[in-house]
Amino acid sequence: MKVNGKDYRTVWMEGDTVCLIEQNLLPFEFKIFRAENYRDTCMAISTMITRGAGAIGATAGYAMAQAFLEGSNDIAFIENARQEIENTRPTAQNLFYAVERVYRAGQTSIERAVEESQQIADEDAAACKKIGELGNELIKDGSTIETHCNAGWLAFVDYGSALSPIYAAHRSGKKVQVYADETRPRGQGARLTAWELKNENVPHMIIPDNAGAHLMSQGKVDMMIVGSDRIAANGDVANKIGTLEKAIVAQHYGVPFYVAAPVSTIDFACASGADIPIEQRHQDEVLYQSGPNAEGKLENILISSPGSEALNPAFDVTPAHLVTAIITDKGIFNPEELGVLNS
Amino acid sequence: MKVNGKDYRTVWMEGDTVCLIEQNLLPFEFKIFRAENYRDTCMAISTMITRGAGAIGATAGYAMAQAFLEGSNDIAFIENARQEIENTRPTAQNLFYAVERVYRAGQTSIERAVEESQQIADEDAAACKKIGELGNELIKDGSTIETHCNAGWLAFVDYGSALSPIYAAHRSGKKVQVYADETRPRGQGARLTAWELKNENVPHMIIPDNAGAHLMSQGKVDMMIVGSDRIAANGDVANKIGTLEKAIVAQHYGVPFYVAAPVSTIDFACASGADIPIEQRHQDEVLYQSGPNAEGKLENILISSPGSEALNPAFDVTPAHLVTAIITDKGIFNPEELGVLNS
Repeated sequence: MKVNGKDYRTVWMEGDTVCLIEQNLLPFEFKIFRAENYRDTCMAISTMITRGAGAIGATAGYAMAQAFLEGSNDIAFIENARQEIENTRPTAQNLFYAVERVYRAGQTSIERAVEESQQIADEDAAACKKIGELGNELIKDGSTIETHCNAGWLAFVDYGSALSPIYAAHRSGKKVQVYADETRPRGQGARLTAWELKNENVPHMIIPDNAGAHLMSQGKVDMMIVGSDRIAANGDVANKIGTLEKAIVAQHYGVPFYVAAPVSTIDFACASGADIPIEQRHQDEVLYQSGPNAEGKLENILISSPGSEALNPAFDVTPAHLVTAIITDKGIFNPEELGVLNS
Repeated sequence: MKVNGKDYRTVWMEGDTVCLIEQNLLPFEFKIFRAENYRDTCMAISTMITRGAGAIGATAGYAMAQAFLEGSNDIAFIENARQEIENTRPTAQNLFYAVERVYRAGQTSIERAVEESQQIADEDAAACKKIGELGNELIKDGSTIETHCNAGWLAFVDYGSALSPIYAAHRSGKKVQVYADETRPRGQGARLTAWELKNENVPHMIIPDNAGAHLMSQGKVDMMIVGSDRIAANGDVANKIGTLEKAIVAQHYGVPFYVAAPVSTIDFACASGADIPIEQRHQDEVLYQSGPNAEGKLENILISSPGSEALNPAFDVTPAHLVTAIITDKGIFNPEELGVLNS
């Protein structure tokens, strides 16, 4: 997608260098991080220079390809590199999938490993593009669409999940407007979604998470589209904290509530949302905020009463019955009928 | 209520000086502002050194009493002072009510004016105390109570509205725990409610506004109590943005949703919530945040993508059918039966 008018992917390879958009600096600075070897690329994953399921997977695949380029036929080097790559973000399913594919291809030749890593990135982009094409059919001209958190192209290789149908609609000439939920505590909506939309010239407004019901009560939201971190076999959807709240409010006002995600997000080994553990993150994400002051100096400030503590659950689970449909790269499904994809 | 173990009201009079808790500095600094004359007191209202319906009303009454003390029998001086006081926060109903009462009393004597201003403050405190006693009957021992924004004693002369039943329960020996919604964009929950609760030693946790539904889905919220800025004759409740969202989510999970407010908050001239205008505030409240950095220096930082705009509706309207009951100083009412109070 576009940044300052130029097309970018979140991650790509130039020769034996992996290039990544430095997401830790966004939205205040746009910079490309160049990882010259697999260890640099591991560091980029673990320090969240890149983040988001699809982007992590592709980056890990490239790291594995770099290891083959560096280690040639040194088996111990390759095995050790694989271990290091897998240790960067041990819960990211896409990472293991990508590393495994590139590792296997490397058994044939170094060239095959590099090709396979490229293939994985291309497949991610293609799946997200397809989500956009299919999802676009659900979007009426003149719609106002609310989204939560960031499920845009920055979280994948390109296009994104929840934002992909919006980009497709916008590019096909439909008039669309986006309400980007701020998404406290980390503000991915205000920071990343707004940044993406501005670069693609999609009209949008940041809204406080508190404003959703008010805007829906006034008929100002035509549909919601959100992403997902994991979808259980029964259609329950784990996503950023606050998604559940929006799904309940959307149902109350009869606003269609869509989840967009590639099929790879569906975990058929997970029977229901009750089996998905909810990560509890550090309270300082709630109690403090950081950003640049008027002089552009990054400051970390206290935004709450000193000495009080905070809860910080990072995700919640939206039950399938609150989800209108799930937009995947293989079609649009009733959340209770995902089983047909498990073959 | 207590600050550092000592009892305070939000506003009180010492001789001819009006003393106010400097709320602009909270929760980072506790300081008393001393207004030596009615003009200082006007400034304290207009610059929001004091805020909240009950606190503004009492402060305006004291300002009018100060004007009598200063102006003695100079009718032009008194009339001019009245005008100035009324111009400080022109939409605050309690302000006009208090000024009128003290002005009338002053026609008899200066002493009567001072007495009347004291009377108004005492009545506000007594009404809030009564709300606490009545509301306490709804709170079971061991309850976890969620609240939104700040409807504590800082918004009144003492006790508060939504927090008053919680203080009463805590003081009566019940074990209660509070989830204080952060309440973006201005963070009154994280800043003021948490500060009040900490000073009263009430166990509490700040939660992101996004976490409400998740906690309710896990059965971790026993009831919600919120305040109100205006209640329409039909029981519709205007309150801080996000209240509507919580009421919908509470109903979804069968969590009782109470509104606590003195009878003076009910506007019988207002037929329904549709007649209550919603104030749209400046987008910078959403896009920027301020607070002290590690060195204690107040900083104002950008927390969103540069150049994107934000919507900032300050209030929303919760329809009566989503409110379990309204806790007033005259009793606990079904929101659809407030008419009995209009006599």
